[in-house]
Amino acid sequence: MIKVGIVGGTGYTGVELLRLLVTHPECELIAITSRSESGKSVAELFPNLRGYSELRFVEPDPALLRGCDLVFFATPNGVAMTQVPELLEAGVRVIDLAADFRITDQGLWEHWYGMQHACPELLMEAVYGLPEMNRQAVKQARLVANPGCYPTSVALGFLPLIENGLVATDYLIADTKSGVSGAGRKASVATLMGEMGESFKAYAIPGHRHQPEISQTLSRACDGEIGLTFVPHLVPMIRGIEATLYARLNDKTVDLQRLFEDRYKDEPFVDILPQGSHPETRSVRGANYCRIAIHKPLKGDVVVVSSVIDNLVKGAAGQAVQNMNLMFGLAEDCGLNQVALLP
Amino acid sequence: MIKVGIVGGTGYTGVELLRLLVTHPECELIAITSRSESGKSVAELFPNLRGYSELRFVEPDPALLRGCDLVFFATPNGVAMTQVPELLEAGVRVIDLAADFRITDQGLWEHWYGMQHACPELLMEAVYGLPEMNRQAVKQARLVANPGCYPTSVALGFLPLIENGLVATDYLIADTKSGVSGAGRKASVATLMGEMGESFKAYAIPGHRHQPEISQTLSRACDGEIGLTFVPHLVPMIRGIEATLYARLNDKTVDLQRLFEDRYKDEPFVDILPQGSHPETRSVRGANYCRIAIHKPLKGDVVVVSSVIDNLVKGAAGQAVQNMNLMFGLAEDCGLNQVALLP
Amino acid sequence: MIKVGIVGGTGYTGVELLRLLVTHPECELIAITSRSESGKSVAELFPNLRGYSELRFVEPDPALLRGCDLVFFATPNGVAMTQVPELLEAGVRVIDLAADFRITDQGLWEHWYGMQHACPELLMEAVYGLPEMNRQAVKQARLVANPGCYPTSVALGFLPLIENGLVATDYLIADTKSGVSGAGRKASVATLMGEMGESFKAYAIPGHRHQPEISQTLSRACDGEIGLTFVPHLVPMIRGIEATLYARLNDKTVDLQRLFEDRYKDEPFVDILPQGSHPETRSVRGANYCRIAIHKPLKGDVVVVSSVIDNLVKGAAGQAVQNMNLMFGLAEDCGLNQVALLP
Amino acid sequence: MIKVGIVGGTGYTGVELLRLLVTHPECELIAITSRSESGKSVAELFPNLRGYSELRFVEPDPALLRGCDLVFFATPNGVAMTQVPELLEAGVRVIDLAADFRITDQGLWEHWYGMQHACPELLMEAVYGLPEMNRQAVKQARLVANPGCYPTSVALGFLPLIENGLVATDYLIADTKSGVSGAGRKASVATLMGEMGESFKAYAIPGHRHQPEISQTLSRACDGEIGLTFVPHLVPMIRGIEATLYARLNDKTVDLQRLFEDRYKDEPFVDILPQGSHPETRSVRGANYCRIAIHKPLKGDVVVVSSVIDNLVKGAAGQAVQNMNLMFGLAEDCGLNQVALLP
Repeated sequence: MIKVGIVGGTGYTGVELLRLLVTHPECELIAITSRSESGKSVAELFPNLRGYSELRFVEPDPALLRGCDLVFFATPNGVAMTQVPELLEAGVRVIDLAADFRITDQGLWEHWYGMQHACPELLMEAVYGLPEMNRQAVKQARLVANPGCYPTSVALGFLPLIENGLVATDYLIADTKSGVSGAGRKASVATLMGEMGESFKAYAIPGHRHQPEISQTLSRACDGEIGLTFVPHLVPMIRGIEATLYARLNDKTVDLQRLFEDRYKDEPFVDILPQGSHPETRSVRGANYCRIAIHKPLKGDVVVVSSVIDNLVKGAAGQAVQNMNLMFGLAEDCGLNQVALLP
Repeated sequence: MIKVGIVGGTGYTGVELLRLLVTHPECELIAITSRSESGKSVAELFPNLRGYSELRFVEPDPALLRGCDLVFFATPNGVAMTQVPELLEAGVRVIDLAADFRITDQGLWEHWYGMQHACPELLMEAVYGLPEMNRQAVKQARLVANPGCYPTSVALGFLPLIENGLVATDYLIADTKSGVSGAGRKASVATLMGEMGESFKAYAIPGHRHQPEISQTLSRACDGEIGLTFVPHLVPMIRGIEATLYARLNDKTVDLQRLFEDRYKDEPFVDILPQGSHPETRSVRGANYCRIAIHKPLKGDVVVVSSVIDNLVKGAAGQAVQNMNLMFGLAEDCGLNQVALLP
Repeated sequence: MIKVGIVGGTGYTGVELLRLLVTHPECELIAITSRSESGKSVAELFPNLRGYSELRFVEPDPALLRGCDLVFFATPNGVAMTQVPELLEAGVRVIDLAADFRITDQGLWEHWYGMQHACPELLMEAVYGLPEMNRQAVKQARLVANPGCYPTSVALGFLPLIENGLVATDYLIADTKSGVSGAGRKASVATLMGEMGESFKAYAIPGHRHQPEISQTLSRACDGEIGLTFVPHLVPMIRGIEATLYARLNDKTVDLQRLFEDRYKDEPFVDILPQGSHPETRSVRGANYCRIAIHKPLKGDVVVVSSVIDNLVKGAAGQAVQNMNLMFGLAEDCGLNQVALLP
Repeated sequence: MIKVGIVGGTGYTGVELLRLLVTHPECELIAITSRSESGKSVAELFPNLRGYSELRFVEPDPALLRGCDLVFFATPNGVAMTQVPELLEAGVRVIDLAADFRITDQGLWEHWYGMQHACPELLMEAVYGLPEMNRQAVKQARLVANPGCYPTSVALGFLPLIENGLVATDYLIADTKSGVSGAGRKASVATLMGEMGESFKAYAIPGHRHQPEISQTLSRACDGEIGLTFVPHLVPMIRGIEATLYARLNDKTVDLQRLFEDRYKDEPFVDILPQGSHPETRSVRGANYCRIAIHKPLKGDVVVVSSVIDNLVKGAAGQAVQNMNLMFGLAEDCGLNQVALLP
């Protein structure tokens, strides 16, 4: 049994991680820390866990965490980087679900996140935990940077095209839409149901932190520069991301359906839908899949990819568990066989 | 492995049954029939099942079903009763998720369902599949009538009070609210999102088929007459039922919290919340639990019980699997350990 | 033109009041105050008002308000009572949309609102602004206590029964359901879309502030004691209240449909639906109506009334404008002819 | 008073047209026809109209319609074209809210709509009723083709760029999102709340009928060829369209904010938001506005426009009333001063 700790489990990523871990057969949850909810049982805060866990939130305690095999950080950006070095030193492996280790370029990270990085020396070591790209490295990693939700949906949709040089990489467009759980579980007017319900909008068009993260991934895939326009939107629903990706084909004759099917044929969590399909976010609700469809509208030279994930599962906690499984030599889908909840 | 067949699996109850059965460790799905979707794979109709089942819908075929150990009917009312007799004769056990065998009184059934019963001789034999009331009988049953969704939530909330003669049974009120999946997956204007979204209403106030079903259950529990006013409502959400129950106490001194906790202390799927709680439907979304809270407003002589279930799980497919487990000597919660999806 | 001021217009009641007032033909909006948003234009905070108002929020300024004919308070409970006396003294009339003047009994008010009343001498003078009950008094009033949202829907549904002594008043039940805008526009975790969306629950079953308000209204209507059980619920939608009311009839022979139609036949904003109807909240979305249906389930001795309003209109800002119209001798429906938005 | 008839008023476009017309000060509603609902009052079908109209649906009756000054067709595609010629001949003016007269090229129309056109001789005469482009022609028109919902939001967002040759027109992208009311009020499984709720998806990526309509509009604006990729999506809400438009700038130095403000400065229903804004669909719910924001992400050479309308108002019934006002010499905003319902 892997001894697991969670730092900061009171947000949506945290409760989703708990949902997956309490039924994971190879995991023992040792500790979950929260300053604000210390002493409260996790099942009191999240009643869906009643009957599954007796655990209580505790004050952050380095000694406790040092006794774990693995610590997940489900904290706001900027927290993990202050605690990770000593955990690694103590031989604990770490998966950070926040953004502290996602961008390798320190200057770029500091520009977008507006703070100084606390342990830049670890940026190169941290493995970007997209198993479909970095599976071998994840297996060996001490420190995994779990990808962002949008970046997961966008990267998986673009990768086969970019890796094979099939599209013009100077003008890629990712028009992405997310349910509101992506905005987190913090008291705020902007994410009240009275504000978000029955309405739709784009946000952060001038620039969003996931743009450089996606660009980094795609640049690595083609070993070149990427020109990416990234526009996120808020959908009046709780879970789910749909990314509609646009690129211009260099070569109109390639069988794109087959290309994607081949690229992902051994992937347990990427599902290429039959030609002509349109994936729905509900087809992955609560499940760790990314489902993808590929189109050429009006048979022209533009390829359109529609990619869906559950932002809290493949876009966060599920992918983190997938990475844990890889790091500890378990079956990659261990504890991740939830069928999506439809309807 | 139990060989299982499903008749009529194209509705919401059907897809939910499939979701639970494809990961059930003791079940082998032999056949699923549908006239309208014959030949189509279940995963094509319900893409959440992609990767979990290769099964295709087939034309109803008695021979195929006779080879099963158990057949579930997830059909409209009035279908099961025409096929059940020959299945029972062939030694197949049956769980009907529709209403054909829920009401023992033939005349009453025919009044409310507006048709003649095709096999009234089985009405007495059929076991009403509420395990919390009829566990032993379910274990032995050839034919189980799976309870309705509202009746499950209402009965579990009233039972401890009624069984112990604590309330005036001539004036019980059940004000119930359901997500729209309860209305089924049939083309209709009334259940379009444009009609149901962002709106709330009561319906069927003059009388609803679940009223006699609940009355029958409660009458049995107290061996007496029941005066029940039952009003259902439609909530602009997909899954979930909340029942708010009102009754006047004969005795204000009873410790109701303890009464409920004792009544259900060995039940795997009934959860009495701590005093002062208000259960949310999302705390059982996708899970087989019924969560219940008990109150005495303003410390008066009225008891108010709030009870929540997922109408498609404990209110339909989950309870059916629970009944299957009992009928076949499996652990009662086998294949039913899904944690509710929150948020 | 009536010179109008608004104190505290940054919540949902405030923006709704603005929506109605900017197109009201007899109203001139002089000032709107807000400490937090001072200097910002109302159209910046609420972009639906772009093109309708150039007004900016200003710091609370007694001199400015003293120049108004009428001041609306759309503030949290406890604010109006500190400012109303000096406004009345200056000859300004006041409509308070909060609860400061709704309950005449000072002790009862202080018990439920947990503070000392700042001007108890005005409690007797304040007119409870339910025009269907107190029209003449409203016309003369200096100070109107605009009713709560739940109380409006419940009172209008019970009044014809109570006024005529037709039901047992010792055991009335009001099971009410509200959209989330009723919880206001304050940063809080509990009302995030991630918490409220796709879920339903009862709340405040032990006791809610609207219980004594409703009891007071119904007591006055029958000049007697009222035993009322009041349970509110939260619906995953933005606007709308449905109240399902239960009472036991003293006399089963009365024509209830006719009773209600007669009681409200001259009311511009109460609509009795045809027999057999079930009102939907969307039928009053954005409009000042209360629509009501009356039933006797299974033809028994229980009367069930279903009553719907838009909590922000007839339950708040619309009723406030209706009261203003009465106070200033305008047509009662002046500026209130919005057709509900359906779908 | 303009004597108005409506053919086919039982859908969402129809009820919205009724909502606007029953309070329009210069309109007299003479007749509304429906085969399926003949004899029923409009207020019975749409209870939001109770108190506003005594009108009943009648069987289609040419004589009745010939007595009107103006007839609106709110029918499925292919109906208006069979009745328009004789109405025009009788001197009746016509606004078709369906697609029969939107595309001038007969062959193109027949390709996309899969039927033969019944009166191709009118295709050239019909005026495309986008007032912001064709105001003068609308004023004189006998026959107005009311634009589609997506085309309205996309055209208004692209026009200033296209008219001024500022972007590469061979690769335009319109990623559009619509509430479900756009799919109409027909019984169908696909648009049930159980199917559409809490989920998001793209649809019709291979090709959608609004693509040629938009291309035609933009081609006319630049007098050249247009390469447009158009992808629509379904949002789990009822009303509202957001269009995110992407184009590559020929000239990065142009002040786009000012360009848009100048282009639309005299338009009563196009609102250019301040720089840095992101329009929400709720800011136009129930109102006839199109609100637009313009961005250059990361200050690059891609322009991103976000444009929102209410699909049933500016995208259908509201624009139809705007066109009626123009055709009959009324103030363009007559009867269209509804403030959007927010929240």
